[in-house]
Amino acid sequence: MQSDDSAVREAHTRWIAAVNAGDLATLLGSMTDDAVFLSPGQVPVGRAEFPAGFSAAHERFRIRCASELQEVVIEGSLAYTRCRDSLSLTPRAGGDAAELAGHRITLYRRQPGGHWLLTRDAHTLCAVASADRVLPDR
Amino acid sequence: MQSDDSAVREAHTRWIAAVNAGDLATLLGSMTDDAVFLSPGQVPVGRAEFPAGFSAAHERFRIRCASELQEVVIEGSLAYTRCRDSLSLTPRAGGDAAELAGHRITLYRRQPGGHWLLTRDAHTLCAVASADRVLPDR
Repeated sequence: MQSDDSAVREAHTRWIAAVNAGDLATLLGSMTDDAVFLSPGQVPVGRAEFPAGFSAAHERFRIRCASELQEVVIEGSLAYTRCRDSLSLTPRAGGDAAELAGHRITLYRRQPGGHWLLTRDAHTLCAVASADRVLPDR
Repeated sequence: MQSDDSAVREAHTRWIAAVNAGDLATLLGSMTDDAVFLSPGQVPVGRAEFPAGFSAAHERFRIRCASELQEVVIEGSLAYTRCRDSLSLTPRAGGDAAELAGHRITLYRRQPGGHWLLTRDAHTLCAVASADRVLPDR
C-alpha cells in the first residue's frame, strides 16, 4: 500500500504533467469541489472559473512548467507541500517567451479511497529576466 | 478552555496588530523556528532573515495592514487560514503611499501549551491603483 507521502508526491507530479499537457480533465479530477487558487494580481479562482482561464492560457501560449518539490507535510487527512516553480509561456502567435518564477504552497485532502486532491493553492510567480530562471532548462 | 478555532483567529489578529505596530518581538514569538514566508518576486524568507527585512520596511514606511480572515481549517495540530489583505506603505520621507492588495494562505502549528505558531505563509500581494483597494479605509 502506497504511503501518504508518496501519494501526495505523485499528485504533485501528475498536476504539473497535466498543466504542461493542457489536460484540463485530469486537473479537474485532481482538485476538490471547493478548490481555491490564489495568484499575484488576480482575483481568487475556484473550480468553476478554472477551465476558462486554463484554456485561454493554452490557446495563447505553449506552457512549460517545471516544479521542484521542497517539502511534503502530512497531518491526518490534510497535507501541504511547498515547491519552487518556473513557468515559460511561449506565444503561439510568435515572439519571445515570458519567464516566470516563484514558489507555491499547496494543500491537499485525502479522500475516502486514499487518494489526495488539491484543495488550496497560493503561488508567488512573477516575471523574471531569463538569466534569473529558477530552474535550468532540460 | 479556548477552542482551536478561536485560538487560531486570535493568532491571526495578534499577527496583523504586531505588523502594524512594528512589534518584531511579538512576531518572532508568534512563529516557529522553521517558519518560511513566500512573497511575489522575492526569495523565501526564514526566521533568520525576517528581522532585517521587517525593520528596513518600518524604517522606510509607515505600514498599515488590514486583513479579513476568510477561512480557518483545523486538522489535528495543523491549521490553515486564508485571508484577504490590503497593505498601505506611506514613505516616511514623504510622497504618495503605495497600495498593495492580495490574499494569503498561512499554516499554523499547535504547540504543547495549546497556543498556535505561524509556520508557513504565502501571499499574493501586488501593487494596485488606489481605487482598487481590497479593504475600505477605517
